[in-house]
Amino acid sequence: MADVANSSSGDSVTDRLVRVLETFTPTRTAQTAAEIGRRAGLPSSSAHRIVGELVDSGLLERDDDRRVRIGMRLWELATRSSQALRLRQSAMPAMERVQARIREHTQLAILEQDEALFLERLSGPASGSNVTRVAGRLPLHASSSGLVLLAFGDHDLQERILASPLPPLTRETITDPAALRRKLAEVRSLGHAVARGFIEAVSTGVAVPVRDETGQVVAALSVVLRRDAPVEPALVELHAGKREIERALGFRG
Amino acid sequence: MADVANSSSGDSVTDRLVRVLETFTPTRTAQTAAEIGRRAGLPSSSAHRIVGELVDSGLLERDDDRRVRIGMRLWELATRSSQALRLRQSAMPAMERVQARIREHTQLAILEQDEALFLERLSGPASGSNVTRVAGRLPLHASSSGLVLLAFGDHDLQERILASPLPPLTRETITDPAALRRKLAEVRSLGHAVARGFIEAVSTGVAVPVRDETGQVVAALSVVLRRDAPVEPALVELHAGKREIERALGFRG
Repeated sequence: MADVANSSSGDSVTDRLVRVLETFTPTRTAQTAAEIGRRAGLPSSSAHRIVGELVDSGLLERDDDRRVRIGMRLWELATRSSQALRLRQSAMPAMERVQARIREHTQLAILEQDEALFLERLSGPASGSNVTRVAGRLPLHASSSGLVLLAFGDHDLQERILASPLPPLTRETITDPAALRRKLAEVRSLGHAVARGFIEAVSTGVAVPVRDETGQVVAALSVVLRRDAPVEPALVELHAGKREIERALGFRG
Repeated sequence: MADVANSSSGDSVTDRLVRVLETFTPTRTAQTAAEIGRRAGLPSSSAHRIVGELVDSGLLERDDDRRVRIGMRLWELATRSSQALRLRQSAMPAMERVQARIREHTQLAILEQDEALFLERLSGPASGSNVTRVAGRLPLHASSSGLVLLAFGDHDLQERILASPLPPLTRETITDPAALRRKLAEVRSLGHAVARGFIEAVSTGVAVPVRDETGQVVAALSVVLRRDAPVEPALVELHAGKREIERALGFRG
């Protein structure tokens, strides 16, 4: 059984499990065990055994056509006691109010592994273009949420991001470290981030920081406006929403 | 490494992983490795090793005080490509509309392992009492969502539930199989379920079935009213909401 527990390269069962789960994406929700094995870099026999075990335990589910999907049981176990859910539940009433008033995509993001991870996105039928997905990520230097999380993040994080490549998503994404440093100072000084055309040329992201009871910024609340829409009405609602979430989290600022 | 892969009782690594994850609940979100081991029935050395591996891979996260929590990475992997998320995203605009109009808890549940599993719950500041949680479960015979999922579920499921214990949650929960059989016939005939005081004496659950493009009932849309509130306004909104979700799912009924 040594090959199940640890491969010759020394990766643990948990590593292999994570690699299996990572082969699933928003656009690749069903795969065969062979496809999973190839994408996870696992030998075919290991892939079939791990997938079989995961199906038996309900973490993956098998389709009628023998392809497998992320199981409802995995979602349930991951969700029911997670901090993501607690933060999201605290934020939902405020997010609903912002969405109802601004009528554009309204999002909550946290810092996770040097990216902005989106915990929630509320949209209406009239909302504009938006690449964000729930449980999706965007780069810190390009998204308004990311700029807020970076600007109010710790020094090490800022230096790490400033020293790493800053790939452009559009012609307007900030890719110069000195310009990004100035933008972060602006975000701290204004208390919000405006990212016009950084992610998509047609959109402007506007984000504000959300603090928990310790006063630390734990999330960014944002809306995605049409590029040339005025940002002031959105900022008024975002600030009201952010204060409401902070009260729910116990922040007395 | 045999003890990591398979214990003497023959449970797989995945079984052990599920047992570790199952020790986390909405009210027990942080535990020590020793507590996890005890609750999961694992030897202390195995518990520490598995928890260590899960922390290394980000599926669990360690607190400042050495307790561990469900990791954001597990939530992300479980959520980003799951059917739960797809169904929920299809339902959200309709749920928001129902919640905005009825101003009481609005919920979406699916059938999972003979229980009603709640994918989403929207609440407003004025909403009444409600025991439901996102990623939480309620018994089929007691909740309005469960009654809908059971009434429109397959014959085997119905006979299995009718043959099993029907524990009371309140004095009004249906606990007699013959009475439950009559209630299910009523739900099928009316096209909705009303559960007055079944879960909590102070509340009435009202639920309607939601069909996917194959015409199969895949979810229940529900609201939790104050016990003596009229159900008709809620039913009007639930039926409008259910039709909107069914259109989003591709049902042409």
